[in-house]
Amino acid sequence: MINKLVEQIQKKKAPVVVGLDPMLAYIPEEIQKAAFAEYGETLEGAAEAVWQFNKAIVDAVYDLIPAVKPQIAMYEQFGIPGLVAFQRTVDYCREKGLIVIGDIKRGDIGSTSAAYAAGHLGKVTVGSKSYAGFNEDFATVNPYLGSDGVKPFIDVCREEKKGIFVLVKTSNPSSGEFQDQKIDGRPLYELVGQQVDKWGRDCMGDDYSYVGCVVGATYPEMGKILRKIMPKAYILVPGYGAQGGTAEDLKPYFNEDGLGAIVNSSRGIIAAWKNEKYAEFGGARFADASRKAVCDMIADINSIF
Amino acid sequence: MINKLVEQIQKKKAPVVVGLDPMLAYIPEEIQKAAFAEYGETLEGAAEAVWQFNKAIVDAVYDLIPAVKPQIAMYEQFGIPGLVAFQRTVDYCREKGLIVIGDIKRGDIGSTSAAYAAGHLGKVTVGSKSYAGFNEDFATVNPYLGSDGVKPFIDVCREEKKGIFVLVKTSNPSSGEFQDQKIDGRPLYELVGQQVDKWGRDCMGDDYSYVGCVVGATYPEMGKILRKIMPKAYILVPGYGAQGGTAEDLKPYFNEDGLGAIVNSSRGIIAAWKNEKYAEFGGARFADASRKAVCDMIADINSIF
Repeated sequence: MINKLVEQIQKKKAPVVVGLDPMLAYIPEEIQKAAFAEYGETLEGAAEAVWQFNKAIVDAVYDLIPAVKPQIAMYEQFGIPGLVAFQRTVDYCREKGLIVIGDIKRGDIGSTSAAYAAGHLGKVTVGSKSYAGFNEDFATVNPYLGSDGVKPFIDVCREEKKGIFVLVKTSNPSSGEFQDQKIDGRPLYELVGQQVDKWGRDCMGDDYSYVGCVVGATYPEMGKILRKIMPKAYILVPGYGAQGGTAEDLKPYFNEDGLGAIVNSSRGIIAAWKNEKYAEFGGARFADASRKAVCDMIADINSIF
Repeated sequence: MINKLVEQIQKKKAPVVVGLDPMLAYIPEEIQKAAFAEYGETLEGAAEAVWQFNKAIVDAVYDLIPAVKPQIAMYEQFGIPGLVAFQRTVDYCREKGLIVIGDIKRGDIGSTSAAYAAGHLGKVTVGSKSYAGFNEDFATVNPYLGSDGVKPFIDVCREEKKGIFVLVKTSNPSSGEFQDQKIDGRPLYELVGQQVDKWGRDCMGDDYSYVGCVVGATYPEMGKILRKIMPKAYILVPGYGAQGGTAEDLKPYFNEDGLGAIVNSSRGIIAAWKNEKYAEFGGARFADASRKAVCDMIADINSIF
């Protein structure tokens, strides 16, 4: 799957991923109204609005981008109906040829991580049959529990040719509270980065590893160091756009071959119609606004090469 | 909810929580067969087997214990049907008067953590209505992203009178890889413990805080230090029994009042019928085996006071 990701990035000339993190506030009133008319102001109604919103955006942008990254929390908040919308979104994106990065940030003790890995990237056995629960292509993983919380994901990646992105340095303001703490003079995130490199060496695609990492766009100096520590890890970069990261900030995340990083934007794309810059589209043409925002983002990021 | 937890622990004289982490391998063949006869060897069939298994165990032990801790990964691996079984389990346990600790180990950037908090402990707004997605009483939270990943959970706890247990020192073998790293001479888990204490001070029940923590039974010397660092935090202690922790190991986790900790056992209780010690019960009386194992565990833990 890492080979497919690299290939799609090159083919589409777009090291970009669209974060499908729908909040009801981003969804135009007409879509919400139609969903509530059918299902009432219920969790099912909210889930239907989310699904229709996602579908329209995916239809408008799938030819431009290699991958999407649905944030499962935004679906999980609507309980079971929300998770059904998550599953429909994953399946639909895969049908459209998109690579799906499940932003699930799971991580637990070994046997429990194995269950998460089976549910999101692999298969679970029921009697004589086996099934994929959610079937994303990649998943994000939290490293706080150490190797035996991460390795079950790697085992499934090897078997299923899928991949993970391990949280190394996150984009949020308080990420430094623990991640930047100095251990023998070097921050914790570097130590995690070293482990990502080590975990990934046994699990290589053609040029990059099935084990990637997450490093926020909001910390470019750290990105530069981490790029060197993990030369074979693809970096998933959140924090571009709405969270404050600029294209210029992104340079250090890429290798000299122009590869090695994929930049996420969520709000900046899916809620583009609410942005003054794309106000001409209005709520009725929200998906066209998203398409324009994707084109602008791709051009912006490619300007650094 | 922390007051209710303390009250129930005192009333039942049982600082014990049963981990409802069903694997199909723990479920007697007859239950699996009946579920597969109705739903086939499908995810729905697996979920039905899980639900029937859980229900029988809850019916057999609810009067003995204050709380249960379903591990969501064990349900999530079966996709949507599995999560429906999770929800049924949560709802059923609450109906039985049990406190439900959702072992979800979520944690993300602020807005995303807010969605998880709403979905598991709070309510989500849909139009003019609001709904609880999963409605646990407590949730476990991963601290790797720092304060702004944890605070949205605390905000919901304050509003809903619910609680969290933040991972400080986990019970698994590789937990030390990052958690034990020394920062200015003190391990990272102590720093996380200090933050738990700080977060919890603003969010107090009568004697204990709504913000508790997770410290594995497998590291008693660390438990002793952490107990002092976080005097007002309830400690959720995994790792007793199957993972190797003994009753004697648990002493340091309690305060002098005999409170301050609640000990989890999962496999040791729900798969008791597979243990040689309870073999007399056999698969047909698996729930009775679980009841006996709970009684033995309570006696074992109370022996340290």
